[in-house]
Amino acid sequence: MINSSKINKIVYGGDYNPEQWGEDIWKEDMRLFSLAGIDIVTLNVFSWALLQPNEDTYNFELLDKIMDLVKSHGLKVCLATSTAAHPAWMAKKYPDILRTDFNGIKRKFGGRHNSCPNSVTYKKFSVALAKELANRYKNFDNIVAWHISNEYGGECYCENCEKAFRLWLKNKYKTLTELNRVWNTAFWGHTFYDWDEIVLPNMLSEHFEYDRTMFQSISLDYRRFNSDSILECYKAEYNVIKTITPDIPITTNLMGFYKPLDYHKWAKYMDFASWDSYPANDASVADMAMNHDLIRGLKGGMPFALMEQTPSVTNWLAYNALKRPKVMRLWSYQAIAHGSDTVMFFQMRRSIGACEKLHGAVIDHVGNENTRVFREVASLGEELKHLGDKTLGLRSDSKVALVFDWDNWWAVEYSAGPSCELKYRDEVLNYYTALHDRNISVDIIGVDDELEKYEIVIAPILYMTKGNYDEKIREYVYKGGTFITTFFSGIVNENDLIVTGGYPGKLRDILGVWVEETDALPNGIENSFIFNNIKYPAKLLCDIMHLEGAEALSFYQTDFYQNTPCITKNSFGKGTAYYVGTRSDNNFYREFMKGVCNEKNVLPVWDTPKEVEAVKRIKDGRSCVFLLNHSNEIKTLYSENNYVDLLSKTAYKKGQKIILEAKEVVILEALEV
Amino acid sequence: MINSSKINKIVYGGDYNPEQWGEDIWKEDMRLFSLAGIDIVTLNVFSWALLQPNEDTYNFELLDKIMDLVKSHGLKVCLATSTAAHPAWMAKKYPDILRTDFNGIKRKFGGRHNSCPNSVTYKKFSVALAKELANRYKNFDNIVAWHISNEYGGECYCENCEKAFRLWLKNKYKTLTELNRVWNTAFWGHTFYDWDEIVLPNMLSEHFEYDRTMFQSISLDYRRFNSDSILECYKAEYNVIKTITPDIPITTNLMGFYKPLDYHKWAKYMDFASWDSYPANDASVADMAMNHDLIRGLKGGMPFALMEQTPSVTNWLAYNALKRPKVMRLWSYQAIAHGSDTVMFFQMRRSIGACEKLHGAVIDHVGNENTRVFREVASLGEELKHLGDKTLGLRSDSKVALVFDWDNWWAVEYSAGPSCELKYRDEVLNYYTALHDRNISVDIIGVDDELEKYEIVIAPILYMTKGNYDEKIREYVYKGGTFITTFFSGIVNENDLIVTGGYPGKLRDILGVWVEETDALPNGIENSFIFNNIKYPAKLLCDIMHLEGAEALSFYQTDFYQNTPCITKNSFGKGTAYYVGTRSDNNFYREFMKGVCNEKNVLPVWDTPKEVEAVKRIKDGRSCVFLLNHSNEIKTLYSENNYVDLLSKTAYKKGQKIILEAKEVVILEALEV
Amino acid sequence: MINSSKINKIVYGGDYNPEQWGEDIWKEDMRLFSLAGIDIVTLNVFSWALLQPNEDTYNFELLDKIMDLVKSHGLKVCLATSTAAHPAWMAKKYPDILRTDFNGIKRKFGGRHNSCPNSVTYKKFSVALAKELANRYKNFDNIVAWHISNEYGGECYCENCEKAFRLWLKNKYKTLTELNRVWNTAFWGHTFYDWDEIVLPNMLSEHFEYDRTMFQSISLDYRRFNSDSILECYKAEYNVIKTITPDIPITTNLMGFYKPLDYHKWAKYMDFASWDSYPANDASVADMAMNHDLIRGLKGGMPFALMEQTPSVTNWLAYNALKRPKVMRLWSYQAIAHGSDTVMFFQMRRSIGACEKLHGAVIDHVGNENTRVFREVASLGEELKHLGDKTLGLRSDSKVALVFDWDNWWAVEYSAGPSCELKYRDEVLNYYTALHDRNISVDIIGVDDELEKYEIVIAPILYMTKGNYDEKIREYVYKGGTFITTFFSGIVNENDLIVTGGYPGKLRDILGVWVEETDALPNGIENSFIFNNIKYPAKLLCDIMHLEGAEALSFYQTDFYQNTPCITKNSFGKGTAYYVGTRSDNNFYREFMKGVCNEKNVLPVWDTPKEVEAVKRIKDGRSCVFLLNHSNEIKTLYSENNYVDLLSKTAYKKGQKIILEAKEVVILEALEV
Repeated sequence: MINSSKINKIVYGGDYNPEQWGEDIWKEDMRLFSLAGIDIVTLNVFSWALLQPNEDTYNFELLDKIMDLVKSHGLKVCLATSTAAHPAWMAKKYPDILRTDFNGIKRKFGGRHNSCPNSVTYKKFSVALAKELANRYKNFDNIVAWHISNEYGGECYCENCEKAFRLWLKNKYKTLTELNRVWNTAFWGHTFYDWDEIVLPNMLSEHFEYDRTMFQSISLDYRRFNSDSILECYKAEYNVIKTITPDIPITTNLMGFYKPLDYHKWAKYMDFASWDSYPANDASVADMAMNHDLIRGLKGGMPFALMEQTPSVTNWLAYNALKRPKVMRLWSYQAIAHGSDTVMFFQMRRSIGACEKLHGAVIDHVGNENTRVFREVASLGEELKHLGDKTLGLRSDSKVALVFDWDNWWAVEYSAGPSCELKYRDEVLNYYTALHDRNISVDIIGVDDELEKYEIVIAPILYMTKGNYDEKIREYVYKGGTFITTFFSGIVNENDLIVTGGYPGKLRDILGVWVEETDALPNGIENSFIFNNIKYPAKLLCDIMHLEGAEALSFYQTDFYQNTPCITKNSFGKGTAYYVGTRSDNNFYREFMKGVCNEKNVLPVWDTPKEVEAVKRIKDGRSCVFLLNHSNEIKTLYSENNYVDLLSKTAYKKGQKIILEAKEVVILEALEV
Repeated sequence: MINSSKINKIVYGGDYNPEQWGEDIWKEDMRLFSLAGIDIVTLNVFSWALLQPNEDTYNFELLDKIMDLVKSHGLKVCLATSTAAHPAWMAKKYPDILRTDFNGIKRKFGGRHNSCPNSVTYKKFSVALAKELANRYKNFDNIVAWHISNEYGGECYCENCEKAFRLWLKNKYKTLTELNRVWNTAFWGHTFYDWDEIVLPNMLSEHFEYDRTMFQSISLDYRRFNSDSILECYKAEYNVIKTITPDIPITTNLMGFYKPLDYHKWAKYMDFASWDSYPANDASVADMAMNHDLIRGLKGGMPFALMEQTPSVTNWLAYNALKRPKVMRLWSYQAIAHGSDTVMFFQMRRSIGACEKLHGAVIDHVGNENTRVFREVASLGEELKHLGDKTLGLRSDSKVALVFDWDNWWAVEYSAGPSCELKYRDEVLNYYTALHDRNISVDIIGVDDELEKYEIVIAPILYMTKGNYDEKIREYVYKGGTFITTFFSGIVNENDLIVTGGYPGKLRDILGVWVEETDALPNGIENSFIFNNIKYPAKLLCDIMHLEGAEALSFYQTDFYQNTPCITKNSFGKGTAYYVGTRSDNNFYREFMKGVCNEKNVLPVWDTPKEVEAVKRIKDGRSCVFLLNHSNEIKTLYSENNYVDLLSKTAYKKGQKIILEAKEVVILEALEV
Repeated sequence: MINSSKINKIVYGGDYNPEQWGEDIWKEDMRLFSLAGIDIVTLNVFSWALLQPNEDTYNFELLDKIMDLVKSHGLKVCLATSTAAHPAWMAKKYPDILRTDFNGIKRKFGGRHNSCPNSVTYKKFSVALAKELANRYKNFDNIVAWHISNEYGGECYCENCEKAFRLWLKNKYKTLTELNRVWNTAFWGHTFYDWDEIVLPNMLSEHFEYDRTMFQSISLDYRRFNSDSILECYKAEYNVIKTITPDIPITTNLMGFYKPLDYHKWAKYMDFASWDSYPANDASVADMAMNHDLIRGLKGGMPFALMEQTPSVTNWLAYNALKRPKVMRLWSYQAIAHGSDTVMFFQMRRSIGACEKLHGAVIDHVGNENTRVFREVASLGEELKHLGDKTLGLRSDSKVALVFDWDNWWAVEYSAGPSCELKYRDEVLNYYTALHDRNISVDIIGVDDELEKYEIVIAPILYMTKGNYDEKIREYVYKGGTFITTFFSGIVNENDLIVTGGYPGKLRDILGVWVEETDALPNGIENSFIFNNIKYPAKLLCDIMHLEGAEALSFYQTDFYQNTPCITKNSFGKGTAYYVGTRSDNNFYREFMKGVCNEKNVLPVWDTPKEVEAVKRIKDGRSCVFLLNHSNEIKTLYSENNYVDLLSKTAYKKGQKIILEAKEVVILEALEV
């Protein structure tokens, strides 16, 4: 994480853009930062146009001042490279830097995250700037991390990208014969005889909606190519900076479950993971937790940075409700509980113009410390000082892994059938919620991660079984692991070509079932099944299957496939493989996962009342339990051990009552007995 | 229909695309076809890019093999010309072949049905290919039909189309004076002084939504032009093939009520009609039947081909539910009952990649005969063998005709008022359903068809009275026919110019009413009227009219036009003309049409229980009644004659009980008594 | 208004387009006009292409005939310049006249209101035509007004507009330093170093939806620029005509609350205001009245012209219901009551083709006088003759003003937060309705209008306080005025830059409150407050505020800001300032405004039953009260004075019963007692 030799506490601060207001205000900013216990600022996120007024000139005068200012006030710096929005003069002089949108329209200058990833101009100037910055500020020992660009994302469909796509394909498939084979171009007369005949898949070619394509394999490769292209931009800056400041860790701020970029691939090139947490108004506690766990999983469980969260309010939602009192603190500790070693905000002072001027900040437009939000921020700042390094570097000890794979995400939602409501992340969240609600710790892993250390591995809707992933699962189960997958699994290979011979394809022997057909239930129509004597709904898709060694745990109750298996369990080697052939409701997932967990002796961290989240983290023999009361009521728990609360310093003896006020948090460190 | 000299049974088979998988699988395909009673395959639908790798080369090696393969296995062939998707190299070399969309954006290579109909390149290469195919395979005596292109459709707004549109207009109107007159260009200063000033009507010019235009007459002529342009492509292939294989009938697969193409005009150039039946999830039995009747009507009642239906599941709907057991068989017989001499599927084997890989097939991805779907297909195959030629060539003897006209469809839905919910096909379906539900046989006819043979002619929403169509109706009624029309009729001529002097224009004397005003009722607001002592709703539009010789059958019950006529009946010559001034509900339409039918002694084929469809077909003194139980329950009927069921060979004596299981069918041939 | 020396009554007539039909019909038109009491026609609205067949030729033959025709029949003329739709030949020869749309796509010829306002071609030819018309017809003494173009509007994003925008900006801001400052370009690296780097804000640059932009200040300036650009077109025609016919007043027909054009700025260049009234199906009586009051306010209360209304039906709504009997008359008198000196229709005769052929007209397609609509028109024509000049020139004596400002409208709805449902006009209508429903006369004023003459000034959502507008309010209140504003006020300056230091910014001292935070309540969620012992909902936004001298009138009842002020009242100098910190319902607004009005002794015109509107107008000691029964029932009132009804000539003594039939109107002139 953020250079740990330089910091021995949760770093606290956020995005600071003093270039947007007069220098007269900077001193006041420093005073307020001090009041709020701020120790880090992220600088220079969007200053390219200021730093480089034209092709031949850099102007670091203002940034020098800012760097000196914050250094002189003892602040650490997360230094951004400013390459997330190119200057207007560059767009005018070198229009190749402008993106072409999904509709095939060339954009003009405007917005941010606006550069074509395959623009030679962008590569040249962004890397040059990163180099210049690294050289200029390399001796600032308060720089604790580099922040390359900002929230990378989007897509480009310009001619340069088209050319680059052809090269990418040539590199991947070598021959057109192979490309024609894996893209199945015999379908609808798409055979290519020259690489130059290939065009990007968008509304001008293969798509009829953003997520609906006539050639899944082409669109899938475009998604990979686009993620790779943007990653190359990141890597180019990374490499030049690393040469100059080898000891400063480098990151870029991610965005949780962000579909366009394969973060598993990206994470390989990040020194630590960081992300911006802006939960939707209706996001559940489990959903927020799952996002944190995804990010933690990107670097194999290593602590990550919560790079941005709002101290108060967002401004881009349909309804931008205020964060209620104590919620900012609660969610900050939730991030820490799930693996963050930072608490950082967007933004330190509210802008005065343009589209984020109504986004919340530590310092509001009123400009002083006399606001509820500032007081809450300052109070947490004080508390984090006292907490010190007690939570730094803690790890999870999850015995359950949930597999999440970007390729599969893209492929499932391009699939063209069976149901428009089939969303990969929804089903992953269903299983995550079932575990989270019982305080079972979960790691979110990718397909390159090891399975051995988990008692249970769940891979919902594993539509695409890439490469030898089936082998990995097979071996895992054979040796004793418990594997769970669901309807619409094992259908295709990595090119979205069907694995023929019967679904679920390469997983068939592991699961011991053959899925003959899949029925799609229109919204509002349900089948049902009995599980542990309780009736649950069967929704969305219903796989109709035959047992091939597996045992049926449940059967459909109606329709022409009444009494055929709905959920199965297969013994395979020393292990067990479950197949859940339909979507059900949260009650089922909880009951089902409870059974599987019990079977494997995977136990909750704590048996808490509803809406109290318990998260355990460990390191070097130390163990902490975070108890987070997300409800609006007081909750009472009983201490399961001898603990001390790292926040209030209160000691709890085993069996002693722990009273959690609404939105309250305790961090219980286990005492040796 | 499909060359009858070569076939003496319902042909059974469908689209077969072996070029999409290895030759190793072909043998297995042949084995499975034989098991399933398949006797025809549609080949070569999307192989242009395979057949023609470049401008100067054809490569028929693969197709030769396939043709030999299927011939050697005794299969008939419906041979497609492959021109529904141009090769990528062609798009690259000759971009004039690419379409420009409704938003004015030039497309790139991709998808299918992608060629500009006015592209010189397309015409040249598509006709050349058709010629090449015809010459190469003319001696294959198992070819029973040509299948030109595939599901023609769409639109193009490119510069070539714009130029062609001007020529089309010049040819039609001769002078700009006449064009300015019929387009009423004095409105909004649109007077044209040069043909080249005319541009295509789309989002860049006259349209503000796809179906909303500022100049109806221009948009209407564009629709005609576009339908004609695409028809020219079809005709060009037709003509070259016909010269080479004069004895093989030629068709293209239509799509039921497909708005962009005027199928009545197209049908003149088709040796037989064929279509692809993919009912929506919520399509009623009547709706499916109406589609079949439309297609049958295109060639004056001649048997048609059911060219495609899914054996199991589609993949492009929002929810792709499985066809329940027995439903495929039931719907196959429904097609036969309504005039089909084939039962054909899309597709014989499920694809392995791209957007139709999840569309159902006779042979599923599992690749063998052990599926429910295969068993149902094979069972029907067996049954059709036994049925033999018993139903071939049967005709309807409808005494009721429903007029359906594409020009009118386009014009009604461009009309700009009075209600956004006014949809032509909806009102046609209302009348069709009223008749179908009582098993009254209906012919769907165009405005060129004769009226004399019908007792009753219904022309709902005859907004546009083209040419002398009023004369045709006048004469028909005068001589004793019964004519029914509705609100929003007689408003415009063929150029969407108002027929001034009082609505319903040229129909006014026939109907004996003058419609002074039309009120549009917002969704949810209803007026009402009493008919045969029952109260019915008046919805959508309410014509406010004056009697001019007609008799009022019903009156509005509320609003300021309370007690004014709502439904009228006029004696005209020896005949009768009804005017239904509003939209009502199905109960009304059934009651109303029952009365009119009884008056003309037009009787149901059979008085069946609900959801049992009865269709009568006759030929050369033979008469068959199809009874189709669309419900999920057993239905009991009593034989109205001495019959034998052609499927089960069961004989029924008059009065004997006929028990129809759910989804069951009988085909009762009347025995001479 | 329309040249008053030539007219001594409410002028009555409307748009007449005889060029759309044969001359044989014109005579009949004249006969029918005479029957209907028509005395004015608006001519030549869309005839540019007819008048000018090519660059070098004018052809006035047809217009000459029409001008002579109507003159010889004693009709006055409102003569349009025909420049609202350019000829097709001009678009072909000079494509710079074509607009580029919001998506950046260049349009082709089509529609109307289609010329780029910064097209040199358009300026040249439109002004030349206006000059030609003025010279040709200057001696027609029956021309009572010029009608320049038609319903100006829309936007253009072409290159010429882009260049013009840069000039407009240069003229406004002088230096790029100033432009960078006011646009806050330091945000997201937007610093401009050359004017040519600036591009228009649309979907290709700063926008991601039509009303959502990444740079509010740029988009705001574009809106001003676009309104100004179109205004320049109007002014160019105005100036040339004024030189030739200095005595004929000039106008253009406005469209009520039309967002793209700043009518306050426009009105300065109009000799009188005129507008087209087409209320939506669900528009309330108050909404219709507010539109009239807006237009009246544009020229400081001077009478305006109702230039267009439909006599019967529109054709572009989703559901085009008929105007019920007597409604056209009722709404005509409502327009007069609110300040119109005309009653004019679109259109005199229904067109025969294109998109307005189903729009209602005085003479329907049947072509004679025997229609309900014609009879109603003729009856009103007769009545207006008898009414004579009795209502001409009457003025309002409103003591309440509602501030409405286009800049603020644009800025509020670009604001990016706090709620997507925040619509400026809605809140203005809430206050207007509260007053209108009690028959309190309101003037709608702009920010340049004087405040002194009003007892109460209401400025809902005064988000933007431009220039010294706060000073104006401060002085007004200080001297004794009552001022009311609401949540989301005082936030930004004229460039959408935040007024820092605490909301409501420059209004803070006047209102005596500091708003610390604003909570956005999602749709369906409500807080509440008690006002005068009644509980009302708090919706949309809830300002959380601190009293700084003001008194709290109400407090929030729930949530974490329970018991904090919701509505406040501040004494400032001799006056009072209210702050309403949330949105409530109509009951609250009525109760609240009733209290404020009573406090200032602002009394209703008449205490009428529900749905009876009472409007008072005065001039030179004369005073008239219009009583308009908008309900469908008979209403009974009691005369508050000695009156005579100018329509029926009935005299009413004070206290006497006045019975108003449904949709009936009386105009009571007070008799001296």
